[in-house]
Amino acid sequence: MQRIVYLNGEYIEESAAKVSAFDRGFLFADAVYEVTAVLDGKLIDNPGHLARLERSSKELGIKLPVTGEELTQIQRTLIEKNGLVEGGIYLQLTRGAEGDRDFSYSEDIEPTLVLFTQSRNLIESPKTKTGIKVISFADIRWRRRDIKTTSLLPACMAKHAAHEAGAEDVWLIEDGYVTEGGSSNAYIVTNEGTLVTRPLSNDILHGITRASLMKLAAELDLTIEERFFTIDEAYAAKEAFISSATTFVWPVVAIDDKPIGGGKPGEIALKLRDIYIKTALELAE
Amino acid sequence: MQRIVYLNGEYIEESAAKVSAFDRGFLFADAVYEVTAVLDGKLIDNPGHLARLERSSKELGIKLPVTGEELTQIQRTLIEKNGLVEGGIYLQLTRGAEGDRDFSYSEDIEPTLVLFTQSRNLIESPKTKTGIKVISFADIRWRRRDIKTTSLLPACMAKHAAHEAGAEDVWLIEDGYVTEGGSSNAYIVTNEGTLVTRPLSNDILHGITRASLMKLAAELDLTIEERFFTIDEAYAAKEAFISSATTFVWPVVAIDDKPIGGGKPGEIALKLRDIYIKTALELAE
Repeated sequence: MQRIVYLNGEYIEESAAKVSAFDRGFLFADAVYEVTAVLDGKLIDNPGHLARLERSSKELGIKLPVTGEELTQIQRTLIEKNGLVEGGIYLQLTRGAEGDRDFSYSEDIEPTLVLFTQSRNLIESPKTKTGIKVISFADIRWRRRDIKTTSLLPACMAKHAAHEAGAEDVWLIEDGYVTEGGSSNAYIVTNEGTLVTRPLSNDILHGITRASLMKLAAELDLTIEERFFTIDEAYAAKEAFISSATTFVWPVVAIDDKPIGGGKPGEIALKLRDIYIKTALELAE
Repeated sequence: MQRIVYLNGEYIEESAAKVSAFDRGFLFADAVYEVTAVLDGKLIDNPGHLARLERSSKELGIKLPVTGEELTQIQRTLIEKNGLVEGGIYLQLTRGAEGDRDFSYSEDIEPTLVLFTQSRNLIESPKTKTGIKVISFADIRWRRRDIKTTSLLPACMAKHAAHEAGAEDVWLIEDGYVTEGGSSNAYIVTNEGTLVTRPLSNDILHGITRASLMKLAAELDLTIEERFFTIDEAYAAKEAFISSATTFVWPVVAIDDKPIGGGKPGEIALKLRDIYIKTALELAE
């Protein structure tokens, strides 16, 4: 059975989900996206994702062709049509196609909107138990990483390099400091038990899961420092982990082949993961 | 009559030229491209463009599904099928589609290749006579601008800002120095008559037209300096101009509303343009 994909108002089989070769998403990466996790057939942290989508598209002047409520309805219809229990919903909005290639576009260009489901084991992910290995990698991306665009080639290159090195992901380094993971936010826990992560700016994505985790960490009375940290500080950390919409929290057990926390998933990482999932399920829509 | 577009081995009508929504070119900007000018129905500087395509795709590990000779044959077939006399041929090569979205890809992924023609007046372009206005704009792009990828969102944003400001293009500024134009290389001629342009590196595109112009400038015994220059030096220059595959040379007559060379197209710019077109036509294939 084929997956049912949403494309510009229609629910179609995935093999029919095709966009014009003149679409600006294809020609210019002139597009934004979001991924919302699904647990028990329900949407996780979805208002945050839709708010960020609205912000990203506003930054680029791409019009949203449907309201947030309509988007949620499309997401729910896709969950139902595909019998999705656990995984994610990918959403991409491009500036659209005008039948030719030109950097310029007209004011009344019609955007392209595509959504599809991905069935994945998120809660019972083996990475939770084993943790992941990451390598440090130069952050060569553009300067507006706070806008969630499909200009993801640097992330593809970095993650490919990680896989070639036998690791699962990268931690990106700029001016000596860790910015974030290949498609996640990055955290360490110092030997004093302080949770450290880079503050929000144009340099990193404003993670929706990150925002939820910071709240939960505060409720747990953890000491939190939003500040820059170096890769050397990370090597020496008690714990390291990443967060993103579909990984929630994954412990990092090695950076550049140096074991972190004795090479085992950290206590605080696993605790935050458990509480995040529990809370998310309670708030799931 | 519809344009005929080449897509993965087939010649089809433009309205049928569609790619999978799972194509990595659409989802990740995991793709490279080239544009070759066409004059008198012949390809201009095409071996240079195909050599750069090979380099770009090699840098990203994207396999070229056809040889350079086959590509040239496709380009010629498109010129013939579309009766193209003057304009350009756009070529895009993506890493391909594997039926889902995942940063990872398999070794045997099949690339997507699309080519289409664009009919344009290149020689009698009005911009040659009037020159163009540019504005300076922060260069926020990634650090591998020598790879000609479809991660063109920053260029779209910059050019849109230029149009909003009543200008035709941008000159991008990094650390106080001009890198290049929005989709072109940038040059000034000093009051002493020296042609100045930024040296090749990862910071700028290695323009095929630039390479040809540098040869022609040397043959004209112009003094050439490949070095960094500031926007202030550009304001005070005798001439300014840009080069690219389909503009050849366009004089710049104002930068940030400051007239350059009295607000008229410069002599050396027009001379280089004339000689470039003459030589290109002689070598056209």
